[in-house]
Amino acid sequence: MTRLRVYDDTRALFHLPDGVIYLDGNSLGALPLGVAERVNRVITEEWGNELIRAWNSAGWYVQPRHLGDRIARLIGADAGSVMVGDTLSLKVYQALAAALDMSVSRKVILSDTGNFPTDLYMAEGLIATLGRGHQLRLVAPEEIEHALSEEIAVLYITEVDYRTGRRHDMAKLTAKAHALGIVTVWDLAHSAGALPVDLAGSGADFAAGCTYKYLNAGPGAPAFLYVAPRHADGARAALSGWMGHAKPFAFELAYASAGGVERMRVGTPPVLAMAALEASLDIWDKVDIKEVRARSLALGDLLIGEVERRCPQLKLVTPRDHERRGSQVSFAFAGGYAAMQALIARGVVGDFRAPDIMRFGLTPLYIGEGEIVRAAEIVEEVISGEVWRRPEYQVVHAVT
Amino acid sequence: MTRLRVYDDTRALFHLPDGVIYLDGNSLGALPLGVAERVNRVITEEWGNELIRAWNSAGWYVQPRHLGDRIARLIGADAGSVMVGDTLSLKVYQALAAALDMSVSRKVILSDTGNFPTDLYMAEGLIATLGRGHQLRLVAPEEIEHALSEEIAVLYITEVDYRTGRRHDMAKLTAKAHALGIVTVWDLAHSAGALPVDLAGSGADFAAGCTYKYLNAGPGAPAFLYVAPRHADGARAALSGWMGHAKPFAFELAYASAGGVERMRVGTPPVLAMAALEASLDIWDKVDIKEVRARSLALGDLLIGEVERRCPQLKLVTPRDHERRGSQVSFAFAGGYAAMQALIARGVVGDFRAPDIMRFGLTPLYIGEGEIVRAAEIVEEVISGEVWRRPEYQVVHAVT
Repeated sequence: MTRLRVYDDTRALFHLPDGVIYLDGNSLGALPLGVAERVNRVITEEWGNELIRAWNSAGWYVQPRHLGDRIARLIGADAGSVMVGDTLSLKVYQALAAALDMSVSRKVILSDTGNFPTDLYMAEGLIATLGRGHQLRLVAPEEIEHALSEEIAVLYITEVDYRTGRRHDMAKLTAKAHALGIVTVWDLAHSAGALPVDLAGSGADFAAGCTYKYLNAGPGAPAFLYVAPRHADGARAALSGWMGHAKPFAFELAYASAGGVERMRVGTPPVLAMAALEASLDIWDKVDIKEVRARSLALGDLLIGEVERRCPQLKLVTPRDHERRGSQVSFAFAGGYAAMQALIARGVVGDFRAPDIMRFGLTPLYIGEGEIVRAAEIVEEVISGEVWRRPEYQVVHAVT
Repeated sequence: MTRLRVYDDTRALFHLPDGVIYLDGNSLGALPLGVAERVNRVITEEWGNELIRAWNSAGWYVQPRHLGDRIARLIGADAGSVMVGDTLSLKVYQALAAALDMSVSRKVILSDTGNFPTDLYMAEGLIATLGRGHQLRLVAPEEIEHALSEEIAVLYITEVDYRTGRRHDMAKLTAKAHALGIVTVWDLAHSAGALPVDLAGSGADFAAGCTYKYLNAGPGAPAFLYVAPRHADGARAALSGWMGHAKPFAFELAYASAGGVERMRVGTPPVLAMAALEASLDIWDKVDIKEVRARSLALGDLLIGEVERRCPQLKLVTPRDHERRGSQVSFAFAGGYAAMQALIARGVVGDFRAPDIMRFGLTPLYIGEGEIVRAAEIVEEVISGEVWRRPEYQVVHAVT
């Protein structure tokens, strides 16, 4: 397989609209050029002509595992330990449910205020369903390590903070958690495809992530779930659907879970979305994630330097330290919502996260130094030129 | 909106491969011609050019509700009571969890042995998670009415049996259930798009269905969930994801459910799959489901008559009574697996369900009398001609 150089070879494999500098690939990745044709082929040839037979003939049935194996390479997981399907909310739910089952005498789920809210909401729902007095304890991200104790059942956190881009030390926290008998569940939403993850090496127990951000698989693309091989044959699939049954097509009345991570499948997998993910992974298969990381850090340093030099009003909230940073750069600014509207109107697409965070995603497969410098110039125009104060940018929209 | 005549106008709106008589639309519906273009537009124009902005500009965010409203018309539900997303396994899980919460003092979930297994498996998983001594009681489908009692918390059944095509009387069972204080959860997998359903009129509490069978939205297309409006503001969303939050983009740390059925959303909706569903519903919007039903019953009567006349070896397991029948015809035959392989090799695509059921789905939008008679001729050739005994048809494949 020919290696692709990050950006130099990969930029041409994405569609980006004219006049746009897209710094929101950490929310929705850009479109890989191969997606439209792949999805069209699945629709017209596989669905259209093979019809029901395509579950076998086109491999739809086994695709969640095959795609999981391709993602595994990017997150330091063994083949056979990652399953694709559903949404990230549901996959963290499955992971948390299995983790709590492994630690029945403890009642505290430890998370932090930098975790993405849906993870916290799903945990609340699970706690209510369990009805056994579990507690979701939230501390500030920098207090997580200190808050680990023998009272904690599960450490349940997102590696990279969606607002600040601050990165937890997965190896260190996992080791400390294990020393205290704590099971770990990692959300990799802002890690997979953003930086090298070493699930096997760090000893993480469970992890989940999405594929529509850095993995570029499209809006609403499926999630993935990692279960450490040592747990996979014992973990309970709380969402125990027929595709995770040991013999799904025997149509037995009683549930019996499949071996390994296969049990974490639930219902019928999303074939069209998996086709888009396949096409996207065709690029990722040929890329070195370490090269992506090096480029991302360089782009981040460049953006920080350019913006700080031009706009002292913007306060950096992303750690400068490479080890502690994900693949985005965020600034706090009281007029952040309006400023982001003004930037978007000028083609610089980042996003805003309440209460005051302007967030810029760095996706080296299709963003280079030139775009970063040009984006910083426009940030200067909007901020220092006070463009953001214009009334048309003050209107708050319903959803972002 | 111009009304489309069933088959006469709708047949030309589907792609069906040459040489195939497709009688498996109750497993995976055929491809509507509009799908490929619609999905391609969403990929290239919306995702490709609008990128993250498409969540607003292209209406992705509100689509689960809009699509739900279009499905509502087909199942006798009020606008605003149906939400699209996830998979049927997950939607029946949400419905069952909410239903059990409405009936805390009772511990029995009543279902039948004709329910699709994933519903039973999901219930088993929920019972284990709840850990409160609930019991899943299974009776034969014909015993369901008699088994209703004040001990039952939730009646949890599929209206049309996936093997036999036997249809439950939703209005009667719901009325009797309610008289006994039982909450009802209906699985409409083989009902939506197959026959008129009257959720509001029958007083059903919860219902869920899929869109990849009779609704023709493609492999792995999303499911839908109905919550009776009288319950919608009180029902607990056990799978409480951020899209079901009252203010998803406020990113609050604590969960607060959205009003109405919106709370049953979980994670990011599957945009590409929703585009296919949209294109498929463009046909359904213009069709009278009562006309579909009349055609389906006529096709079923024709198939039963033709097959029984030609092949007395095949034993009809579908009720002859129109009121008690869904939109498929099934025969028991000891050599059913091999016979279905032989039929498929001759272009008659039905499917096999263990232990001995040969199943033929009737989808009047794209199947007419001519195909039914021709299929019966080929069934005769395979069965009476003993073609099914040939060794090549005895090989059992891994999945169907």
